[in-house]
This record gives sequence, structure tokens and C-alpha cells, in this order.
Amino acid sequence: MPAATPIAVTDDQLSRVKYDADGLVPAIVQEQGTGDVLMMAWMNAETLRQSLAEGRTVFWSRSRQEVWRKGDTSGDRQFVRHASYDCDGDTLLFVVEQEGNGACHTGERSCFYRAFG
Amino acid sequence: MPAATPIAVTDDQLSRVKYDADGLVPAIVQEQGTGDVLMMAWMNAETLRQSLAEGRTVFWSRSRQEVWRKGDTSGDRQFVRHASYDCDGDTLLFVVEQEGNGACHTGERSCFYRAFG
Repeated sequence: MPAATPIAVTDDQLSRVKYDADGLVPAIVQEQGTGDVLMMAWMNAETLRQSLAEGRTVFWSRSRQEVWRKGDTSGDRQFVRHASYDCDGDTLLFVVEQEGNGACHTGERSCFYRAFG
Repeated sequence: MPAATPIAVTDDQLSRVKYDADGLVPAIVQEQGTGDVLMMAWMNAETLRQSLAEGRTVFWSRSRQEVWRKGDTSGDRQFVRHASYDCDGDTLLFVVEQEGNGACHTGERSCFYRAFG
């Protein structure tokens, strides 16, 4: 069973993240090993801090307007193995170990299961 | 030298994409082969259609408020090899062949070159 490993960050690093008008930043989730992009969701400053401190992804659900501790209900937790922010500081990338059946609420492993063309 | 290959889409597929209040949808760009996530940028309905029709990424620049044909200035074009949309239809994923030095304006190959912790 995967274990959560906290990532120690400085306030300086956290201050480089830029949030949109709603106080949110998009977070891409990529699976360790396969490299598959599993999903994209949103974090606010608090859930970003939680994700790093707890070593598992915690999002802000825009539809439910509440903290979304990924996997608390489904069991499909995501353990953070690497986390980075982009050149503009306005997008995050989490490399995770995906627990359970996958990242998507449809039962698919990745949310990106429908191709154009 | 990589070649552009158009992706034929139906109006039905395009209609599944949901845009935000600004008419934009986030597009994750992943490198074919390495699986590296290179960048995230935004598309509107028109630049999504262009990206698929031309087989290279075309974004909407939020900072410049104009169409951003990736690589027209830098030479670092991205040739689309696979494109998909997520379960909610509100995020896109492009797998590309990256031309030139990389995706990032800083000269880095990926925009996600700064890790937390």
C-alpha cells in the first residue's frame, strides 16, 4: 500500500504561485511510472498547502464549492511523489502514485479517455 | 523535420467541450515519447478548431489577448499526435512532437522546471 510522504516547502516557493480571480490554480495530475496524465483539477492556497503537507492531493471542488480530499469517498487517493509549478506560477503539476481503480469518477483510469478524431 | 497531420473531428465532438466564462478551456501539452508535461495554455473554440485542422497547437494568449500560433515566432512548433478531452469536457490534452528547443519561453524544455521542496 502506498504511503504519504510530505513535501517540505518554503513560504517563498508558495508565494510564487499565482491564483485566478476566484483564488484558484489549475493542478495537473500525472501518474508516476506510466507518465499518463490522469486529470486536472483546481486548488486554492489552502488545499495546495494541505496537498504538500499531507503528501496526497487535496483540491477545491468548483461544482460543490468545498474542499475535495481526493479519495476520501472513493478510496482512490493520490500520493504525491513530485510537485512543481510552471514558469508563470499559474499552473501546478503533481506526479502521483494513484491508489485504487483510477482517477476518474467514471471508472476510467484517466479522465482523458475520449480522443478527438 | 516533423510534419503536421490534421485531426478530423465532428461537430458533435467539438460540442462536448465546455468553455469558461471567458470562452476558454485549459489545454495540457504533453510530449510524445518522453511523456513529459511541457506546458499548459488556453484555447477558445476557434483556436481548438485550428489546432486540430492544422495539426499544430494554436492557443489564445490571455496576456496579449490574441491568437498565439505556438512557434510562429520562436520556431518551437508543436505537432499534434493525439488530442483528447476529459470526462467533464472542460480540459484538453494534446500529445505533441515538440520542435526546436522546447516549449518554455525561458529556454527550458518544459515549463514545469521548478519543484516544490
